[in-house]
Amino acid sequence: MKFHTPSVMAKGFRCASMNCGIKEEGKDLSLFLSDVTANAAGVFTRNLFPGAPVVLGREIIRHGQLRAVVVNSRVSNVGTGEEGIENARRMARSVSQAFDIPEQEVIMSSTGVIGRQLPIEKIEAGISTIGSGLTSDPLVGAEGIMTTDTYPKAISLEVDGATLTIIGKGSGMIEPNMATMLVYILTDAEIPVAALDRMLREAVKDSFNMLSVDSDTSTSDTCLALANGLAGPVDHTRFAEALKTACVEMTRLLARDGEGATKLLTATVTGAVNDTEARFIAKALINSPLIKTMAYGADPNIGRILMAVGKCTHCTVAPEKLSITINGTLVYTDQARVDFDEARVRSLLSGEHVAIGVSLSSGDASATAYGCDLTEKYIEENAAYYSS
Amino acid sequence: MKFHTPSVMAKGFRCASMNCGIKEEGKDLSLFLSDVTANAAGVFTRNLFPGAPVVLGREIIRHGQLRAVVVNSRVSNVGTGEEGIENARRMARSVSQAFDIPEQEVIMSSTGVIGRQLPIEKIEAGISTIGSGLTSDPLVGAEGIMTTDTYPKAISLEVDGATLTIIGKGSGMIEPNMATMLVYILTDAEIPVAALDRMLREAVKDSFNMLSVDSDTSTSDTCLALANGLAGPVDHTRFAEALKTACVEMTRLLARDGEGATKLLTATVTGAVNDTEARFIAKALINSPLIKTMAYGADPNIGRILMAVGKCTHCTVAPEKLSITINGTLVYTDQARVDFDEARVRSLLSGEHVAIGVSLSSGDASATAYGCDLTEKYIEENAAYYSS
Repeated sequence: MKFHTPSVMAKGFRCASMNCGIKEEGKDLSLFLSDVTANAAGVFTRNLFPGAPVVLGREIIRHGQLRAVVVNSRVSNVGTGEEGIENARRMARSVSQAFDIPEQEVIMSSTGVIGRQLPIEKIEAGISTIGSGLTSDPLVGAEGIMTTDTYPKAISLEVDGATLTIIGKGSGMIEPNMATMLVYILTDAEIPVAALDRMLREAVKDSFNMLSVDSDTSTSDTCLALANGLAGPVDHTRFAEALKTACVEMTRLLARDGEGATKLLTATVTGAVNDTEARFIAKALINSPLIKTMAYGADPNIGRILMAVGKCTHCTVAPEKLSITINGTLVYTDQARVDFDEARVRSLLSGEHVAIGVSLSSGDASATAYGCDLTEKYIEENAAYYSS
Repeated sequence: MKFHTPSVMAKGFRCASMNCGIKEEGKDLSLFLSDVTANAAGVFTRNLFPGAPVVLGREIIRHGQLRAVVVNSRVSNVGTGEEGIENARRMARSVSQAFDIPEQEVIMSSTGVIGRQLPIEKIEAGISTIGSGLTSDPLVGAEGIMTTDTYPKAISLEVDGATLTIIGKGSGMIEPNMATMLVYILTDAEIPVAALDRMLREAVKDSFNMLSVDSDTSTSDTCLALANGLAGPVDHTRFAEALKTACVEMTRLLARDGEGATKLLTATVTGAVNDTEARFIAKALINSPLIKTMAYGADPNIGRILMAVGKCTHCTVAPEKLSITINGTLVYTDQARVDFDEARVRSLLSGEHVAIGVSLSSGDASATAYGCDLTEKYIEENAAYYSS
């Protein structure tokens, strides 16, 4: 398994992006296209108010076959009723006509403001011309799906002679539940639909499902995997491992680029009695505003870590067995603060990555959650993000 | 039932506060004293790492009898092991000696930084002289228990010829679980311990337990009720009602003075299938960073409200039955945004109190949660609140 720098596109996939007039400036429409029909799997938000693309997407993915993914940003097509469903269908139909693909092999996503109808004519006009810009640079496709992200995100790696490319976006309203904001996984490996689906769910569980920027679950979260088979068969164990590694890497990129973030925050819980509790405590740590601001302020405030573990009142936590590390330095054990080198820990906390480790010594389960610090900029962005 | 302005002290109670040298400036020690032994009840944090005063407090309150409450601020006596327990005992012992009260009728609280030992000699010296400042102004006692609060909080009301006085503090690390930060309820009504305990728990359930400034549960939350009986017996139904009203009022004060807050945020959920779900959804709304920043930005962003209800994936929510109001104005119903007067709603949102109403029309249960907006100032305070 080997990461590419810069990232490259899996064989037989191309993408394009453009401004079709939804945003005043910047790209707002992206297309991902496979030259041949790809096996496909997907996971979507579990929010009870899913957007129209998610409602339709769940039906479309059932066939397990895709040629194209079309995505617009700025308007999410959520809370838009029957008209929203019809508009999502029109996005697929336009791609079908423009690229001569069966309509049921086109899936769509929308991200942005909730409760507004899509400017569907602009999108249709855009789709009719977007083909001229098709390229094999995945970052081009990543550009059209951005909302508050500060840069486009794509990673790729080589596994067993096949290429795995992941394009993702997501910056706020992020605590995915079954998926993340928008993530498209494209590979030329040959993988049957059932295996692809299983591998995707397994990878998502430890990556995007452990990501939280602000504990708010989007109505549009979508993660799709397309495998067009052009590179032939691969070893499933190695591919699944590569997929999980790449998903974790993309999760770290999304977390680090959380709205207003200045650093990546991770929490690793070990020794939990079971997987559920390990995940719950890791998420509680990553979501605590007091830990997020502590990371921002670069202060080794052990009390806040104790507090966040302690508020998981239904979990099995034996206070006398708890140890805490910050970026690898032991700061709490045997029910007392360790006399650590504060200046050194403060300096570690000032870096790009704050890593909190909590050892419970009560069982064998472990989990890592991914988030970011909480800064004035998150407030500014979200207090100013007007809905109309 | 009638609120006093300004608040007064229940008969037979006095209080005092002073700087005993824990803080560089400002008061850091308070004493509340009843002339006669009072019946007492209490609820404490459920955090798995409670402070020494909470550990001891649970034992002390079992006797159901109190004469005095002694409180220091700046250092919370949490994560301090055996030495912390002994220091908490020494606080009670000092009060016992200085005021000739049985030691088991003195309860103590500490609030502030976690993981540091109390400067117990300073506190003992303070207790030996604090008696000279005893007064019947409850705000004086409220001053010594403040941490990041911007002003001291006390309210009082008249019920059935008795007086009910509540002193409270709490600004950050607030999502109480069974109690709130520090709240002392003093009354001269004559109420048996069992009834007092029942009324306290009932009142806390709908008030302090529905408060969340930042979703973080403190290790020190304590709510005590002392009834010294000097005003004679009262009607229990009316007193319980007055107690709940006063607790809700104190909850609103604490929420409004949340760290960095510029306004009170309430969420009322009606028509839920049961009490648990009504409370869960109301808390999800009040805790959502995107709703908190929306309140700060005075933007009627309906999508964020949909999102927050929708992320309660285990609750019974029928999207077609959902209606949403903002400060009484209907903004969403029949699965669509209502064409409301945006300028008017923005102006309502700019006020001192943002009230979100969510009607689920699925059952008879309802709940209200209390919080505040999220501003740059919360970040500043908590990124700068150094642990040492």
